[in-house]
Amino acid sequence: MNVVVLVGGVGGAKLAYGLAQVLPPEKLTVIVNTGDDFWRYGLRICPDLDTIMYTLSGLVDPVNGWGIAGDTLNALQQLRAYGEDDWFRLGDRDLATHILRTRLLHAGVPFTEVTERLTKSLGISQRILPMTDAPVATMIETMEYGEIEFQEYFVRHRWQPTVKALRLEGIDKAVLTPAVDQALKVADAILIGPSNPWLSIEPILAVSGMRDAIMKRDVPRVAVSPIVGGQAIKGPAAKMMAELGYPVSAASVAAYYGDMLNGFVYDQMDAGLLVPQPHVLNCETVMNTTNDKVLLARTVLDWIKGWS
Amino acid sequence: MNVVVLVGGVGGAKLAYGLAQVLPPEKLTVIVNTGDDFWRYGLRICPDLDTIMYTLSGLVDPVNGWGIAGDTLNALQQLRAYGEDDWFRLGDRDLATHILRTRLLHAGVPFTEVTERLTKSLGISQRILPMTDAPVATMIETMEYGEIEFQEYFVRHRWQPTVKALRLEGIDKAVLTPAVDQALKVADAILIGPSNPWLSIEPILAVSGMRDAIMKRDVPRVAVSPIVGGQAIKGPAAKMMAELGYPVSAASVAAYYGDMLNGFVYDQMDAGLLVPQPHVLNCETVMNTTNDKVLLARTVLDWIKGWS
Repeated sequence: MNVVVLVGGVGGAKLAYGLAQVLPPEKLTVIVNTGDDFWRYGLRICPDLDTIMYTLSGLVDPVNGWGIAGDTLNALQQLRAYGEDDWFRLGDRDLATHILRTRLLHAGVPFTEVTERLTKSLGISQRILPMTDAPVATMIETMEYGEIEFQEYFVRHRWQPTVKALRLEGIDKAVLTPAVDQALKVADAILIGPSNPWLSIEPILAVSGMRDAIMKRDVPRVAVSPIVGGQAIKGPAAKMMAELGYPVSAASVAAYYGDMLNGFVYDQMDAGLLVPQPHVLNCETVMNTTNDKVLLARTVLDWIKGWS
Repeated sequence: MNVVVLVGGVGGAKLAYGLAQVLPPEKLTVIVNTGDDFWRYGLRICPDLDTIMYTLSGLVDPVNGWGIAGDTLNALQQLRAYGEDDWFRLGDRDLATHILRTRLLHAGVPFTEVTERLTKSLGISQRILPMTDAPVATMIETMEYGEIEFQEYFVRHRWQPTVKALRLEGIDKAVLTPAVDQALKVADAILIGPSNPWLSIEPILAVSGMRDAIMKRDVPRVAVSPIVGGQAIKGPAAKMMAELGYPVSAASVAAYYGDMLNGFVYDQMDAGLLVPQPHVLNCETVMNTTNDKVLLARTVLDWIKGWS
């Protein structure tokens, strides 16, 4: 069973990790949001890709869910000594990733291939694909600061500004890569991780051809809700939902994805909700331990197999 | 008294440090060899400039004489995990320097200005000038490996290959910068540190206009010998001298500089040598402690003042 999962950062990485434990490596493809990517000190930083890469390679910091376990901040400290802004936390080991990625991109290597080289050197056998090879930047129109880059909103201002609208800069030049196209074509199931629908999944779906490539596949197309009991497990999903005028509930996430999906997984805490999808699975979705991740992955895959 | 000193790495940095302790900061300009510079992981590394910068800012590792004290190697370890060569030791704090320099160079900021910005942010008040704004690469023709880049010879092969010849790649496009030109014009004394004449000083002198700009100044023009008792204090100077067919002695260094200089400082251990320069000073030149550095700087400056 070929599985493709669309993810953002930490939440999606948990499901990807669970899937990686229950599927043969060649059967799992992770398509990752790159709208959060940005330039910092002349280096190309791809927070979501790195989170997935560090998670699947086992390097990830288990407490934060991002960055490399046991990493130090000495380069950052020196950058501060040089008078540079240091609100974006870059570990020393982590820097190796950005340095190599930047060198390869400057040498003209396509982003998908850069990512493949990095993941392979870390010993990852699953495929990790950026959503597109073109640079896309999620811009956040805020009440307090006007339009700012995603990381400014998310990290520098700790997602406290009020969101008025989102804009995907560069999305007009973003097309489906052959690798993503092929992965979707042979997928037996297409999953969407419990990531922020607006910040993490919408940029992926906005890539030219992506939504069609998903919808034309007559296979289970299933999202896992990032909203549990009217709250986000992590990050600004719930806050942003309210600010954008949506009722804060799993049902409203399901409605947002609409008929692009034919199935939806949401938490047992929300058992009473009426979710507008043909297939629904109501189960424990909160993933704290390794066991939780594996269990959710197995539960979702078993449920999907039962459809036919 | 305006003093200009031409230097390479660790040996020259010691004299520059001594001079910095006895001169008002605005009276000292250090012109640094950049023939050792190279690209590594897409970053521009300038070993001699960094050694001078770290030495004058007090950041330098006191044991090695280069790099930053207490630095860690976590990024390098991760680069190795990615399958990269790691023979060139890059500390984590040190990386901050290369990252910022590379970003500024890519943004089109001239090398001299890049260096000024970095040194100023580190609180250095002396002027540190790259010998030229153009990239120059010292290439070493070796018996064992053919022609290799300086850092390959020096670090990777620990200067063990036999040197047949040197070539300065890019030197045809290297011209005197306005900053170097001006510093030499107003200098009351021009010193050459106890650096390797072939590897560290020759690239500086080979910059178009440099030798003339020095020779036309009717001021003390004095080198300190890097050869003491027929041996180099550090590095390949003596070995290379023999390989290039020169007698290994302070006298032969003085002869090499010839009439570009009018004075020469060499160690008391070599008191018996006949040194072919109009003015000679025979004194303790080995600088181990801070005190040694200050004492040599003061001795040389006092001696020069006595010329007139």
